[in-house]
Amino acid sequence: MSGHEEHPVDDRAGAAPTTLATGRLEAFSDGVIAVAATLLVLDIKTPEGSDALWPFLGHQLPTLAAYVTSFLTILIFWVNHHALFHAVDRADRTTLFLNGVLLLTVTFISYATSVLGHALQTGHNDSAAAILYALTLAAAASCFVALWLHLGRHRELLSPQARPRVRAALRRSVTGPVLYTTAALLALASPPASLALDAGVA
Amino acid sequence: MSGHEEHPVDDRAGAAPTTLATGRLEAFSDGVIAVAATLLVLDIKTPEGSDALWPFLGHQLPTLAAYVTSFLTILIFWVNHHALFHAVDRADRTTLFLNGVLLLTVTFISYATSVLGHALQTGHNDSAAAILYALTLAAAASCFVALWLHLGRHRELLSPQARPRVRAALRRSVTGPVLYTTAALLALASPPASLALDAGVA
Amino acid sequence: MSGHEEHPVDDRAGAAPTTLATGRLEAFSDGVIAVAATLLVLDIKTPEGSDALWPFLGHQLPTLAAYVTSFLTILIFWVNHHALFHAVDRADRTTLFLNGVLLLTVTFISYATSVLGHALQTGHNDSAAAILYALTLAAAASCFVALWLHLGRHRELLSPQARPRVRAALRRSVTGPVLYTTAALLALASPPASLALDAGVA
Amino acid sequence: MSGHEEHPVDDRAGAAPTTLATGRLEAFSDGVIAVAATLLVLDIKTPEGSDALWPFLGHQLPTLAAYVTSFLTILIFWVNHHALFHAVDRADRTTLFLNGVLLLTVTFISYATSVLGHALQTGHNDSAAAILYALTLAAAASCFVALWLHLGRHRELLSPQARPRVRAALRRSVTGPVLYTTAALLALASPPASLALDAGVA
Repeated sequence: MSGHEEHPVDDRAGAAPTTLATGRLEAFSDGVIAVAATLLVLDIKTPEGSDALWPFLGHQLPTLAAYVTSFLTILIFWVNHHALFHAVDRADRTTLFLNGVLLLTVTFISYATSVLGHALQTGHNDSAAAILYALTLAAAASCFVALWLHLGRHRELLSPQARPRVRAALRRSVTGPVLYTTAALLALASPPASLALDAGVA
Repeated sequence: MSGHEEHPVDDRAGAAPTTLATGRLEAFSDGVIAVAATLLVLDIKTPEGSDALWPFLGHQLPTLAAYVTSFLTILIFWVNHHALFHAVDRADRTTLFLNGVLLLTVTFISYATSVLGHALQTGHNDSAAAILYALTLAAAASCFVALWLHLGRHRELLSPQARPRVRAALRRSVTGPVLYTTAALLALASPPASLALDAGVA
Repeated sequence: MSGHEEHPVDDRAGAAPTTLATGRLEAFSDGVIAVAATLLVLDIKTPEGSDALWPFLGHQLPTLAAYVTSFLTILIFWVNHHALFHAVDRADRTTLFLNGVLLLTVTFISYATSVLGHALQTGHNDSAAAILYALTLAAAASCFVALWLHLGRHRELLSPQARPRVRAALRRSVTGPVLYTTAALLALASPPASLALDAGVA
Repeated sequence: MSGHEEHPVDDRAGAAPTTLATGRLEAFSDGVIAVAATLLVLDIKTPEGSDALWPFLGHQLPTLAAYVTSFLTILIFWVNHHALFHAVDRADRTTLFLNGVLLLTVTFISYATSVLGHALQTGHNDSAAAILYALTLAAAASCFVALWLHLGRHRELLSPQARPRVRAALRRSVTGPVLYTTAALLALASPPASLALDAGVA
């Protein structure tokens, strides 16, 4: 558990590693986040033969707004993920687990987006769908808080330059869950306003 | 905002970076573009049990033409993306944002392709669909113009060798939006001619 | 077939390699595993216009449980894959083939998950589906046993530091297939208990 | 067009490159090939509530056989792709274009697989579908021949160690198209035998 080393070589190769260098972890996370972002487009329906295209797209505006919001939000999460793992030299089991939960919630965004787009378009369930959507984003954002909390307690996992800055990063990461939880509450009153707040955070 | 450094090390690790090295940005963009290109194939319908295969494929020729055009166009965009980020040493927030919008439009190509293939096959909406398609490509190509414009004003983000060439790159990048906008106008008269021009650009 | 070299340069470039450095093999495997994990979310159904969202999600709990279990299990497989290839310097044809079968079973997890979620929800086939699911995980876990067995017999493929530890890694890798096979047997009596054991392994 | 340099640095950064280092090209190709391989699993149907699982899977055996064959074939193409680009130092426009066509045919394999699985199961179109499938594989394999032919004529693109071996690689690459074309002819007589030959090549 001593963990940190100058050169990121795992000295337990061949055994289950207690800590691991973050290169492949970043590549794998990039893959999951990139696929999650790209799959969003599959939710936009194509018109049937008899529909005129422009009115059809106009009718789909809520779905398109949800698609753009989710895509840009996932990009922001990716930027934050990049900043976080840039600061990390070695990942331990807890970091791996928290990163796993983060990736799980990021893939779930595509489901929440699909539900929200459909609900805004039909007018059914729009409040519940906006709550689900905002809570999903809040859950993803909370994983960053949990990661920074964990890294703050295990600074040996961070690069030497990053250690003095972990507190500031933690403080900044708290904004996300707070705003997304506010958006969830706002959804009780006005689903479109809630989505606008979600988009504003991005 | 001083940004540029000889060695691409982020001196604000642990904090929200003001600029960031482009390695992982390229990897993430590769992921999104690769998935967007691969998803195109999901639009080609498989025959029902009773259809004969060759006539069925013949009937699907417009969809297949749209698939091939989109795939090769996305590859060209990838080559241009590669050339652009090869010239970039550090990405600032604006670069990240413009790259994000570029990736968004690239994933939207798969939607526009699906609409176009369906419209050409049924004869409904073919003009509108060809306009949507050409405008989507024009939007993606415009992101390159915006990126080169931004980099031309912030040459400290570029590698020293790339700086003298940014004007030429900007001038060259303008061709794309011009040709795709022409294709959009052409679609008012002849959707297949518009698609042919789109394909010709690739 | 002498294989191991200090510098991972393929001395048969341009010819079919007899062994190959593992960098791109890891990147490709990352891609397949990341996509397989992300596709799982496509199985969760979105509500039709008239369904209320929360009861609908409540009704989908078995599907959601299967989704979370599969996602985390695939992440664990990825961690094991990382640990294994971290120990490998050069891959020979057998390593490539076994890795290919491992990737095949990992992508099949998404099918088994889909079948399981549907079966648990409808109550039809739940025992058979839980057996299929546990056997799929057992097959994937067995690929790790086969890989460590092969590497134990061809230690020249391993990095020098990893060689003394290959036995311990092999012994540890046997736990997976044993537990998943137990879960398959348990499914005859109680499908939910079987899924709980699968989740417990993760 | 002088192309080859000791250090793979593009001396035209900021301009459209005439040749480019292959690192990101490999990463992008890995992404497309990995996604194409993983998408294959989406073709396997899940049982409806009333079907018993094991007979249902038994009935799906042709689809499963096509899935396994395609997955392993795509892996072999990936291995060949790896060997080829390991030999390449710099890619010119023709290499990029041929690689693009290769990636296009690889993504098309998932379509041909879907058509084949459906046809073998229903007994409709099975001969035509097996021809389409074998010709798709032949087209992908032909791209390797074209790439080696091009590289044989532009040896400055190859790494110095790879240059003497390009003839042998070209000769070996011809086997693929020959065998797959044979499989296409064989499909006129017996579709399952044709698929068996396709699988045998892998």
